[in-house]
Amino acid sequence: MGKLLVVGSVALDTVATPFGEANEVLGGSATYFSTSASYFTSVDLIAVVGEDFPEKHLAFLKSRRIDLAGLERRPGQTFRWRGQYSHQLNEAQTLDTKLNVFESFRPKLPAQYRTPDVLFLGNIDPELQLEVLSQVTRPALVACDTMNFWINGKRDALWKVLEQIDVLIINDGEARALGEHPNLVQVAKKILSRGPKHLVIKRGEYGVLMFDGRGYFGAPAYPLEQVLDPTGAGDTFAGGFLGYLAATGNRSPDAFRQATIFGSVMASFTVEAFSLDRLRVLDYKEIEARFKEFKRLTHFEDLPT
Amino acid sequence: MGKLLVVGSVALDTVATPFGEANEVLGGSATYFSTSASYFTSVDLIAVVGEDFPEKHLAFLKSRRIDLAGLERRPGQTFRWRGQYSHQLNEAQTLDTKLNVFESFRPKLPAQYRTPDVLFLGNIDPELQLEVLSQVTRPALVACDTMNFWINGKRDALWKVLEQIDVLIINDGEARALGEHPNLVQVAKKILSRGPKHLVIKRGEYGVLMFDGRGYFGAPAYPLEQVLDPTGAGDTFAGGFLGYLAATGNRSPDAFRQATIFGSVMASFTVEAFSLDRLRVLDYKEIEARFKEFKRLTHFEDLPT
Repeated sequence: MGKLLVVGSVALDTVATPFGEANEVLGGSATYFSTSASYFTSVDLIAVVGEDFPEKHLAFLKSRRIDLAGLERRPGQTFRWRGQYSHQLNEAQTLDTKLNVFESFRPKLPAQYRTPDVLFLGNIDPELQLEVLSQVTRPALVACDTMNFWINGKRDALWKVLEQIDVLIINDGEARALGEHPNLVQVAKKILSRGPKHLVIKRGEYGVLMFDGRGYFGAPAYPLEQVLDPTGAGDTFAGGFLGYLAATGNRSPDAFRQATIFGSVMASFTVEAFSLDRLRVLDYKEIEARFKEFKRLTHFEDLPT
Repeated sequence: MGKLLVVGSVALDTVATPFGEANEVLGGSATYFSTSASYFTSVDLIAVVGEDFPEKHLAFLKSRRIDLAGLERRPGQTFRWRGQYSHQLNEAQTLDTKLNVFESFRPKLPAQYRTPDVLFLGNIDPELQLEVLSQVTRPALVACDTMNFWINGKRDALWKVLEQIDVLIINDGEARALGEHPNLVQVAKKILSRGPKHLVIKRGEYGVLMFDGRGYFGAPAYPLEQVLDPTGAGDTFAGGFLGYLAATGNRSPDAFRQATIFGSVMASFTVEAFSLDRLRVLDYKEIEARFKEFKRLTHFEDLPT
């Protein structure tokens, strides 16, 4: 079982959707990622929280086999995000972001974290992503996320990151902004020509597309009767995707396709409740059952050859 | 090979996309549908054109084995539609609609059209769809399309149509408007409880979802490097879907899934060029090849049981 290292945010979220509200609940990209990945492998977490971060959240993360030696606690307040969703649940509207201790976050890796098998650079300043890369022995697999704020504001540093990674996991709006083209096939060609060997494009309720230079793989999202809160779906996807690849060590095209489905499975659970509430009570048997439902959902008979 | 009957519009379109323009070209829901279906089976067409409708278009439709005994030519001008698309190609902006002879269209079926195996009620006034239904011996399979204009303006007549059909083929915005709910799973339950046994939801570049009361089937759209003109994609999908089902006579769940893929294949060709230009030069071998590409695009290994 491979060692998986993630760097990203641990936050307290306040979220309103048409179906309810959650105040000051556990959130953050690294939180969703590592909880999701923890169903497949053990996870080392690099992040920062403030003095106000509740002990119960630390206890939860520990209960999920997530190593917190790299979770720094600093004077000040924890990163807070406040957002809302309309009935069109695919996109969050950010109402307020207070970076707090996250503003001066400089990831420092404990010695035992410096030889991961798989590394996920969550959505942080690309210059910090480069600092993390400089502190590790090149892992077998490096993946990264980003957002339009960095695509527009730190494009050069971001391309330096992309030159050094294997998998870029972003949403379709980000892909179009980074590739500077509306057509995703052309965007994929452009991005894959500059470093990453895989581009995974998350499309929320519309599913996911993966490009690998030889072709593509597409899967719909799991049709859910009720989506309570889409927050963290993308990071949960990445956690399932990389958690599975870290656990198996398999890097075949088939393994990447299965990883995409495991990512989709984990994301489909996350959005069924606010915060990490669904992932808290999830059972691995449920994950396997939904994977098989994805198979039934997408299967059709090929034509005779 | 089953007999397929379609009622809908035959039009002259003027379309502008970021990649070019087409002036007064062949268009209309029944045109796209029947040309697409003609790759699978013979088609009887019910529609109306004006005195100005070019002979060359009639010659083209005839060349595709489309029976034109039900294509009425009336005094006046042919239905004209003018629209444009931005780089976000998923939705047309209508600039002008001139119904012309289509305004007083009353479908009258020639005697030899009254016993079709499969009937497609294209997007016309639901009261006219009811008139068509009253003129046929109940076919083995009846499918229908509609649009927000009828969903909002003639809801009662539309539900009367839906009570009598087997398959409703609409886009996701229309499904949400008809089901009066943002969640597509709940929309599907509601619609399927009132008549149709299958609901096919077209999502443009995001693919398609089919609900059949027992479960669902999802497929991505074919990732194209260039989409020149999305006009007619939905009707082309319906033509491939029903053309295949009419040709085989198979009504198994597997056949409906394959039909969904054939519909997606046909739509993926249509958008590669303006008007019917790609369908004009298409070869059945290309259709089979792209079907197999859909299989490669969506296949993943199931978990061991």
